[in-house]
Amino acid sequence: MISVQEALKTILENTQDFEVEEIPFLESVGRVLKEDIVADRDFPPFNRVAMDGIAINHRFFEHGVRDFKIEGIQPAGSPQEKMDNAANCYEVMTGAVLPENTDTVIRYEDVEIHSLMATVKLDALEKGKNIHIQGKDRKQGSILIPKNRVITAAEIGVIATVGKSTVEVAKTPKMIIVSTGDELVEVNETPEAHQIRRSNAFTLVSLLEKWNIKAETSHITDDKEQLKSKITNYLNEYDALLFSGAVSKGKFDYLPEVLEELGVEKLFHRVTQRPGKPFWFGITDALGMSARDREQGKKNSTPIFAFPGNPISTYVNCLAYFYPWFAKSAGVELKEEIVILGDDVSFKPELTYFLQVKIEIKYGHLVAIPVKGNGSGDLASLVEADGFIQLPKEQTAFKKGEIYPLLRYRSF
Amino acid sequence: MISVQEALKTILENTQDFEVEEIPFLESVGRVLKEDIVADRDFPPFNRVAMDGIAINHRFFEHGVRDFKIEGIQPAGSPQEKMDNAANCYEVMTGAVLPENTDTVIRYEDVEIHSLMATVKLDALEKGKNIHIQGKDRKQGSILIPKNRVITAAEIGVIATVGKSTVEVAKTPKMIIVSTGDELVEVNETPEAHQIRRSNAFTLVSLLEKWNIKAETSHITDDKEQLKSKITNYLNEYDALLFSGAVSKGKFDYLPEVLEELGVEKLFHRVTQRPGKPFWFGITDALGMSARDREQGKKNSTPIFAFPGNPISTYVNCLAYFYPWFAKSAGVELKEEIVILGDDVSFKPELTYFLQVKIEIKYGHLVAIPVKGNGSGDLASLVEADGFIQLPKEQTAFKKGEIYPLLRYRSF
Repeated sequence: MISVQEALKTILENTQDFEVEEIPFLESVGRVLKEDIVADRDFPPFNRVAMDGIAINHRFFEHGVRDFKIEGIQPAGSPQEKMDNAANCYEVMTGAVLPENTDTVIRYEDVEIHSLMATVKLDALEKGKNIHIQGKDRKQGSILIPKNRVITAAEIGVIATVGKSTVEVAKTPKMIIVSTGDELVEVNETPEAHQIRRSNAFTLVSLLEKWNIKAETSHITDDKEQLKSKITNYLNEYDALLFSGAVSKGKFDYLPEVLEELGVEKLFHRVTQRPGKPFWFGITDALGMSARDREQGKKNSTPIFAFPGNPISTYVNCLAYFYPWFAKSAGVELKEEIVILGDDVSFKPELTYFLQVKIEIKYGHLVAIPVKGNGSGDLASLVEADGFIQLPKEQTAFKKGEIYPLLRYRSF
Repeated sequence: MISVQEALKTILENTQDFEVEEIPFLESVGRVLKEDIVADRDFPPFNRVAMDGIAINHRFFEHGVRDFKIEGIQPAGSPQEKMDNAANCYEVMTGAVLPENTDTVIRYEDVEIHSLMATVKLDALEKGKNIHIQGKDRKQGSILIPKNRVITAAEIGVIATVGKSTVEVAKTPKMIIVSTGDELVEVNETPEAHQIRRSNAFTLVSLLEKWNIKAETSHITDDKEQLKSKITNYLNEYDALLFSGAVSKGKFDYLPEVLEELGVEKLFHRVTQRPGKPFWFGITDALGMSARDREQGKKNSTPIFAFPGNPISTYVNCLAYFYPWFAKSAGVELKEEIVILGDDVSFKPELTYFLQVKIEIKYGHLVAIPVKGNGSGDLASLVEADGFIQLPKEQTAFKKGEIYPLLRYRSF
């Protein structure tokens, strides 16, 4: 039995080297960017008109001129015009190139236009006003988005602007989620009195969607030979395996021995936590892969996350262990979310306690309100919570107002 | 010109009635649930063994018996067994039905087993221990998930458990996002000196993905006849239209007049905010649709969100107006996220100020650190921020420590 901290450390020492793939930029939301996005030109790429109005040469305004003859018009999307007479003005549109020989833009609201003359209604005017100077935001060649971040709509705009119609992202691992247990029937079946429907596998599929992993699912009955032959195939076919069930002390919990018989190296079994204690973690070829193996195209070693089958156990272990494993493998740094306990909690066993909480925001404070569930089998309680707070095993009393880390699965 | 509050009120008075559709449950993450999910049986559906171990009749333990003959084994997934001799015990597995004639489970850790006898190593034992009583979590017929919530992995597990292989969700509107502006070229083209690449349309597509809306995109040049003929088609084909650009005071900003010529009722143009002021909003048949029209299958009236074309303006208006419109139309209640300003800010114009911020969590406090951008054209600054805080137009000085609402686009 090891601690949550040791378990996590072991898992993070066994991340995979996901490779990169190039995909159409518009399909990249939620993926992990694996190249720096660099400005291909200055931002903005020219002295850009920032308001609809007229462009003048400020010198004339300074000398008291308020009436300007309109010499021409500079629409957005047209090549730069040149104003021949510096005493004139040009009508200019937002997004247009500033015409040559002008240096200041006055918006229409501050101008009166009558036939071909514009009269400025201002007493004072700053030189360079309403112009977005070339390169002011970013210089050509500067890094606009550093690699290793999760792409959102904000990044998509920048990626489009620099002309990257495809973009390099971390490949997602090919994964299968395997449920076990003879008591389980399919979702569309009507269970007998002693049966229940499969749900953990689908919960895990949905949790993995956050990372754009499209996992397959499978079910194996509590039969040693079945387990052995199916898992042999999965170890060859998939980059990572998640199991739910068959790792506890039951007579038919064959999974740990089957995995070890198949040569998977057990890195730990059982973690001092509740729920989720019987978690088993192992890896194929933990030490067997050299840099040269990798060069020669040898498959990554395959980690096996075997979670206990109680629904809350499976759920919290996916958040607490698989998420950090995936993030580190993909190169993403996860930020820790810290919340304020909203009620006194007491928990006696010397185990790290993952407590279900609802998050409320009060005056900018993240307050975690404990959700009263009925233990690790109470699937429905997940619906009432937003996440789990992690309460350390060294303490038994946790006071309202203290702060603890949150594993969140629902945002606002 | 109207206030942000009035603009939002108008938009929320013009929501659509999305209908429901039935989809495979495993595809429903991120969709809005439109039916109550009800317990088809008690949760748990039988007195469920919660630990691997032995089941006994507590009366015998009470009378000092510690050695129990093992009469049989009750695996998970098998019909309920009956223990014939109440003085015996049964081996029981987590998830199994509690055998008839037993009432208490003792985990293997507290038992010694030698051949067919189990010796209990406990001095005290609570009756009913380690049994998850039928119906303890939820009773048959109770509502496990109320409709109108966004489905996450937590809901998927419950939906699977009650046997709903398909689930009713809100339909998403059929939408098109239209960019305008002659200065724009496609992402895979190399712009001339006076041109830039299209980006807003793709940013909006990505922002709409949060709600599982798969929007189409289109680009129209600044040509009145083009605008007119294309928009006529779009109004017939789509449930809602988003525009970016052509709503300001420029000579070629034809969109408002074109929409009005096409019979779209303008509900407002220009909002007292920065960025995003020239926002135009209108609707077809605002008052023309009766309940009878609707019954006879008449199409919903079509709202038109015409955002100004500066990238930050488009972005913030989508968050501030389109998101609440969609949420209310689908029946979802959005929670307001309130954050603490992390630095003094001064903003003189009498406009609501949407300020870009980075969110940091300090001791459970959500702190908004202003991001210094270069105005509404500074696309790249979106990458450095997590959201916008909304600063009221009645104030000019905003002090560190004050709290304001956040429009967030990036979570942790």
